[in-house]
Amino acid sequence: MAPRDPALDPRVVRTHDDVLRAALDVLLEEGPHAVTHQRVADAAGYSKATVYTHWRTRHDLLRDAFTRLAQAPHHTPTGDLRADLVAELTAFRTAMEEHRLHRALAALVDLTPTVPGLAEVRDVVVTEGEQVLRGLLEPVFEGAEREAAVRMLAGGVLYGALLHGRLPDDDAIAASVDAVLRSRREP
Amino acid sequence: MAPRDPALDPRVVRTHDDVLRAALDVLLEEGPHAVTHQRVADAAGYSKATVYTHWRTRHDLLRDAFTRLAQAPHHTPTGDLRADLVAELTAFRTAMEEHRLHRALAALVDLTPTVPGLAEVRDVVVTEGEQVLRGLLEPVFEGAEREAAVRMLAGGVLYGALLHGRLPDDDAIAASVDAVLRSRREP
Repeated sequence: MAPRDPALDPRVVRTHDDVLRAALDVLLEEGPHAVTHQRVADAAGYSKATVYTHWRTRHDLLRDAFTRLAQAPHHTPTGDLRADLVAELTAFRTAMEEHRLHRALAALVDLTPTVPGLAEVRDVVVTEGEQVLRGLLEPVFEGAEREAAVRMLAGGVLYGALLHGRLPDDDAIAASVDAVLRSRREP
Repeated sequence: MAPRDPALDPRVVRTHDDVLRAALDVLLEEGPHAVTHQRVADAAGYSKATVYTHWRTRHDLLRDAFTRLAQAPHHTPTGDLRADLVAELTAFRTAMEEHRLHRALAALVDLTPTVPGLAEVRDVVVTEGEQVLRGLLEPVFEGAEREAAVRMLAGGVLYGALLHGRLPDDDAIAASVDAVLRSRREP
């Protein structure tokens, strides 16, 4: 029997995920300064040596922890444009409610200028995050208008959560989607 | 002669402002952990004792430093709705370019859950920041539609700067304003 690839060992995968989730929790609750190998190991229930085996520096830990945000769940389009846009923004809100995605994104952009390589992680997270939204808008908007629609929908929801301090309710999401749909040019 | 009110003494006002500007600079360049009386005094060129005289704790310093953001300059409306909206969003971009307002807002929302009283500061900064925009939209949108338009315009610009890592260019600002104006209901 060939030896198993340790990267595919389910125990290793689980450890990996436990540690990164703990790193993000420590970051959101105690601030970036608290994200040390010792503190993250304690929070995840592993030894500091285990954490060092996978991540040599705290910057490695931070980059991988934020990369997890690219896995946030999305809506699967059904073909009803309005319902799909509402459902996708609602999935964004659910990830904020359940996983504090808005706070993780605020921490990510806050740390981007000072952590090497984090801009690339942010770009992956944002590209993945916008993919469904951009795909839905593709048949109805072109070029600069599509980009504006993506920024206004995703940005409007995130802005409300972070700057107004409350997640958008169903009516607020519907009002944004309807405004963007009304902004289509007459054919 | 009556003694001068020390709060109105121009030297005190200048010291006050120098220290708060330095506190925000230290925050944006070195992270929230670096905002200590000693570090801020060094950065501002005053003694630690002077900083302690005005701000007893580092939370006091952080709250007052973020309160400065409410003074960001705005456009004075001229009566041309489209031009006024473009100019107001351009003033927002200028404050990002010249004073890193987007990064200061990201730091503010990032620290809000852990610094007592900071949510109230955020609310003042955001209410002041949105005032011109909301005033411009008031005659053309009502209720939930006006709120959605405010979030989409301010949020779209901030989202681009923070999540895409680049300030919106003139075309991007115009595309957002035109989309919102096209979204008006037919009278």
